[in-house]
Amino acid sequence: MGGSGFVGRNLVRRLENSGRELVVIDRVPDSTGTFQGTFIEGDAQDPEFVASVLRDVRPETVYHLAANSDIASGIEDAGLDFGDTLMTTVALRDSLLRYPATRLVFASSSAIFGVSKSPLSEESSELPNPVSWYGKAKLASEYVLESLAAVQPDKTIVMVRFPNVVGSLATHGVVFDFIRKLQRDPSRLDVLGDGNQTKPYVHVSELIDGIDFFLKRAVPGITRVNIGPRDLVDVKGIVVEVCSALDVSPDVFYEDSPVGWIGDVPRYEFDTTKMLDAGFSVKLSSREAVRRAAEDLIEEWATE
Amino acid sequence: MGGSGFVGRNLVRRLENSGRELVVIDRVPDSTGTFQGTFIEGDAQDPEFVASVLRDVRPETVYHLAANSDIASGIEDAGLDFGDTLMTTVALRDSLLRYPATRLVFASSSAIFGVSKSPLSEESSELPNPVSWYGKAKLASEYVLESLAAVQPDKTIVMVRFPNVVGSLATHGVVFDFIRKLQRDPSRLDVLGDGNQTKPYVHVSELIDGIDFFLKRAVPGITRVNIGPRDLVDVKGIVVEVCSALDVSPDVFYEDSPVGWIGDVPRYEFDTTKMLDAGFSVKLSSREAVRRAAEDLIEEWATE
Repeated sequence: MGGSGFVGRNLVRRLENSGRELVVIDRVPDSTGTFQGTFIEGDAQDPEFVASVLRDVRPETVYHLAANSDIASGIEDAGLDFGDTLMTTVALRDSLLRYPATRLVFASSSAIFGVSKSPLSEESSELPNPVSWYGKAKLASEYVLESLAAVQPDKTIVMVRFPNVVGSLATHGVVFDFIRKLQRDPSRLDVLGDGNQTKPYVHVSELIDGIDFFLKRAVPGITRVNIGPRDLVDVKGIVVEVCSALDVSPDVFYEDSPVGWIGDVPRYEFDTTKMLDAGFSVKLSSREAVRRAAEDLIEEWATE
Repeated sequence: MGGSGFVGRNLVRRLENSGRELVVIDRVPDSTGTFQGTFIEGDAQDPEFVASVLRDVRPETVYHLAANSDIASGIEDAGLDFGDTLMTTVALRDSLLRYPATRLVFASSSAIFGVSKSPLSEESSELPNPVSWYGKAKLASEYVLESLAAVQPDKTIVMVRFPNVVGSLATHGVVFDFIRKLQRDPSRLDVLGDGNQTKPYVHVSELIDGIDFFLKRAVPGITRVNIGPRDLVDVKGIVVEVCSALDVSPDVFYEDSPVGWIGDVPRYEFDTTKMLDAGFSVKLSSREAVRRAAEDLIEEWATE
């Protein structure tokens, strides 16, 4: 579900390369047009649609990546995240109750934590308090899937909390925006917020490595894991990396606001001890992931 | 939670009369000013607030009636139901995980079913497909509370699905609207929709009888029950009852549309076999409940 989105497209390519038989459902086909498997167009919010696909396909593993990916727009219109991020999960839960699959991977998010006092682990007793509708929808989605696990204890459910994800085939995000702006006007870059927003960034290829790693090792029941790099990078650092990758030296203009948009979490980090203890690590630092992502996109767009 | 709303005010009075010690949390105090217990002002969407109340009060029973009650406004702004109806449930779930209470009553709704082919029972295998954000938020809330039940199996959770509720202290709804319009202009009544919308209506006093009945008999785990009358009434019937109660004969104008507002379910009924089999019945028909409610409100407003 959501196989035409940013992470979805990357995951689909990886799974295709490993010879898996794939069925993608999404509202739109992947615009890059390279997908060779079965694409079924439909709205994953519609339980009848999702159930009909599960009935016909009987997948062994379901990847639920359907979500509103534009967190900032979701601030303006709560219906985006309520529908695309949460109700897709509700529809999937109800459908899986009828047509069970053995394994389920759910794309959760560090946004469920909101602004927390300290880096939060999977077992934190601090109350999650997401600030964006996106984060709220992901948090409620985790609970909706817990309710499924309660009645299907044999199902393996892996909930992977993503930090900011960057890389090839991106459709949105800060790296994407900066490159687009600078390709239009290399002499000037307007940045949302004061540039001090500081967060972890993972390259999509390493995120998918992580999903694969934890899915392979997961046992029946729920596995929650925060996947993230070993450090953070601030927006000013992202500006430096993107400008360097593009070989441009624009005048950079920051705003006074510590947040880029309402609902933005200006600084967060989450605890990845569980990931590390399990034997998985993200090799690229946040800054390296951003740099790699900038190079990916510049190359991709040049050959389009 | 939500003790200053329509059903909340009625429930609070009933519990006060039975000598229970009560703590009400709501964003606003009950405007009728009759509540004698402890009122704590706050937003039930805020998990820290809800947790602090549970920590201090340690209630034996929690009633979760906090919700956006204006379904039609929730169509315009999904954030109303996402926040007030769903995230209150998420905050309560997280808080109860930390400070457990023995019993929880959750005000769910027939709106979770949406437009269904046949009257739906609690054990229906038909996929629920709510059409309003309100119904979606109530459905997701049920699952969020199921996830709580999975980790606190000793907790008694009663989820009562309300149909349309009418009666004393109402703050909204079709009976409320008609009386207000007719008291302004007894010669004319403009009705939303074509008047053929046909639904079950329960008088709030009987709904509370039902909550009390099922809470007393509930065992640990989740009890879901649809509470409703034995029949339906259409909007044209409601017009007749309200006009008769007010002793007015207005010109009545209907619209062409089969729904009163976008997201309105023009006709629904749900299966109350489980309720009846358990030994509880709603004595007033839908039409009688509406009539009684009209009389309640006319009397209440006359003495204000």
